[in-house]
Amino acid sequence: MNTEKKTWLDIPESSDFSIHNLPFGIFSTIEGGYRAGVAIGDYIMDLKVLAEYGHFNDLSIDTAVFSQSVLNDFIRLGKPVSRQVRQRLQQLMTQEDSPLRQDQAKALVLQKEATMHMPLAVGDYTDFYSSLEHATNVGSMFRGKENALMPNWKHLPVAYHGRASSIVVSGTPIHRPKGQSMPAGAEKPVMGPSKALDFELEMAFVIGKDSQLGSSITVEEAEEYIFGLVLFNDWSARDIQKWEYVPLGPFLGKNFGSSISPWIVTLEALEPYRMAGPVQQPEPLSYLQNKGKHNFDVALEVSLQPAKGEAQVIARSNFKNMYWNICQQLAHHTVNGCNVRVGDLMASGTLSGKAQDSYGSMLELTWNGERPLHLADGQERAFIHDHDTVSMRGYADKEGRRVGFGEVRTKILPAL
Amino acid sequence: MNTEKKTWLDIPESSDFSIHNLPFGIFSTIEGGYRAGVAIGDYIMDLKVLAEYGHFNDLSIDTAVFSQSVLNDFIRLGKPVSRQVRQRLQQLMTQEDSPLRQDQAKALVLQKEATMHMPLAVGDYTDFYSSLEHATNVGSMFRGKENALMPNWKHLPVAYHGRASSIVVSGTPIHRPKGQSMPAGAEKPVMGPSKALDFELEMAFVIGKDSQLGSSITVEEAEEYIFGLVLFNDWSARDIQKWEYVPLGPFLGKNFGSSISPWIVTLEALEPYRMAGPVQQPEPLSYLQNKGKHNFDVALEVSLQPAKGEAQVIARSNFKNMYWNICQQLAHHTVNGCNVRVGDLMASGTLSGKAQDSYGSMLELTWNGERPLHLADGQERAFIHDHDTVSMRGYADKEGRRVGFGEVRTKILPAL
Repeated sequence: MNTEKKTWLDIPESSDFSIHNLPFGIFSTIEGGYRAGVAIGDYIMDLKVLAEYGHFNDLSIDTAVFSQSVLNDFIRLGKPVSRQVRQRLQQLMTQEDSPLRQDQAKALVLQKEATMHMPLAVGDYTDFYSSLEHATNVGSMFRGKENALMPNWKHLPVAYHGRASSIVVSGTPIHRPKGQSMPAGAEKPVMGPSKALDFELEMAFVIGKDSQLGSSITVEEAEEYIFGLVLFNDWSARDIQKWEYVPLGPFLGKNFGSSISPWIVTLEALEPYRMAGPVQQPEPLSYLQNKGKHNFDVALEVSLQPAKGEAQVIARSNFKNMYWNICQQLAHHTVNGCNVRVGDLMASGTLSGKAQDSYGSMLELTWNGERPLHLADGQERAFIHDHDTVSMRGYADKEGRRVGFGEVRTKILPAL
Repeated sequence: MNTEKKTWLDIPESSDFSIHNLPFGIFSTIEGGYRAGVAIGDYIMDLKVLAEYGHFNDLSIDTAVFSQSVLNDFIRLGKPVSRQVRQRLQQLMTQEDSPLRQDQAKALVLQKEATMHMPLAVGDYTDFYSSLEHATNVGSMFRGKENALMPNWKHLPVAYHGRASSIVVSGTPIHRPKGQSMPAGAEKPVMGPSKALDFELEMAFVIGKDSQLGSSITVEEAEEYIFGLVLFNDWSARDIQKWEYVPLGPFLGKNFGSSISPWIVTLEALEPYRMAGPVQQPEPLSYLQNKGKHNFDVALEVSLQPAKGEAQVIARSNFKNMYWNICQQLAHHTVNGCNVRVGDLMASGTLSGKAQDSYGSMLELTWNGERPLHLADGQERAFIHDHDTVSMRGYADKEGRRVGFGEVRTKILPAL
């Protein structure tokens, strides 16, 4: 039950976009260009229109940021501003005599009549590898159970740089990548469409404040630099990756596309869902030690829909499964003086749980294709087929107070 | 001898910036803001002023691109436009009755009175690993001579994604990075300033045309997408890198900073210096086979200047040493559908030659510190010290026709 704030708008109880959430995104409609919006129930609050109606006049915000094609400039105004905006929107949506009730027709846009866009210009994208279960699963498959974790894994949040140009918003189809692979037993590599296309269930945090080259962000300061989070599907071609990745890491096996959910859920909205992370043993070096609760209880699920079939859930996991939390990730990323910029994305790495049906990739769910998934219509899947649609959803829920991420949905098209 | 074109300006014969070069950059002066310029001898042609004087009026260019703080929008106009601009500048600098001779005082700025800036907004930065000699040296050190090259190396141009945010222009000091490393024989990692700070002598090409996600650029088309080249110093902390890089590649060992030269030398200016690359055996897969000359004869050198000492050359190499050429690199990068954007940088990887004094990193020059360099003043160097300045220079020269890159110079400051 939502006991704190009631809105005059009819919001379905199962909606990800309760009055407590108010995530930011960029949308357009047939009539209007790109602009900033906030999801509420089945609607979007049009921030450009609200600004034109004067609802932010007393907040001394340069409301031009709401008419831009990305949220970077809005986010750059800082957390005090985004907090004020969220508070004002909560007022407008809860006051019985809210002026918004009169302006509804113009200020509220049905989500089904809007198109969502990439909410950010992403400067740099980093992918961590912070789920112990995922790293152990993948390591076991490729190096055996005894050597599953590399010696560095429990000492630092392992990560690598990904490609920013190919990050797309939910709904954007991705073509199956072509590339080199080395078939088992072959003497020469072959070229062709990937035969082992996979998703990776991840979340990513959005940098909300620039740091300076040469300086570091401590674990204590880290959350000041984090604006919010999105769902992240780190598409992977396992056959391409396996052949190319030694010694410098993943490249073409990853950079053909990554998909994000369109709504950025702020850290403030996630406040009630904080929890402690797993015990870290051995104890990390001091720059990685942080007190308090920095993991978040966000239920996650992946569903797969074949071309002519029904969508079915194939994995259920949770963001709380991360061994290294977002503050540790950011402190590590900048300990060497690397600078971050507003709009940068830092993905978690695949979020697998302990149970077999909580694994966050086909690689793990089918144990590298050895145990194909059986779909409801009788089809089997070792990896992802052309025309399959993969959707990821995520939400936090505590005593009926729900804050959700919506979804990131991607259809795979044949290689060009 | 410069037999083709004579300019009325006095250009020293040893200048990198002959009438044949005309590289593009971004500069400012005490009086004026950021703007585009072209280097000529000891001067910069101020493109903003030349546009104001009407010298590009008949070329139907939106000359607002010359008043911006980066060259991306100018480059995006396409090669026909940048070629026209270079031709116009050559006319203006060679005609005896050039109107520019009158406007000289305003249109020509002494380089020593200007500050150079990052010429590009870099969307993504990729680092290749395309020198056979470098890969063999590094592989020998870490895995022994027999296993020096990984099985994939001669089949594809190995690469990884780097960090765009920390790329800085020549002259910007970089702080020694701090980070985790695992000392030999230790049981636990330690944290502190890197003890193995290194440079990497590289060149990087600049993407001049966007490609579409899902589509590929062929080896034949590749040069249409390449605007020009810069010198690139891929700073590396070997101790940090060694501990972190398994299994996902270099991260904090690299992303604390990379330095580029300020002038982008166009592919057109490098035309006379083309040459064939090394024979590639085994024959690459067909998408990597290209005919014609796609390597470039660019002499490179690295010098090291201690805090109170003289600069001295410590390595001489050549861009022609690349095994995989820039067309192969770009075709490989996009074969999976990865898109590129104007301003992206693609670095070559360390450009080592066969001779010991042609190695492009301290790691190789001192063989991982085993054979320290002896500097003229008696000091030794295994790796780079605080307050050392590393400079890289590069130029092509054929029958007295010289096209140079200027330099990328970086001073290392102590860790913060």
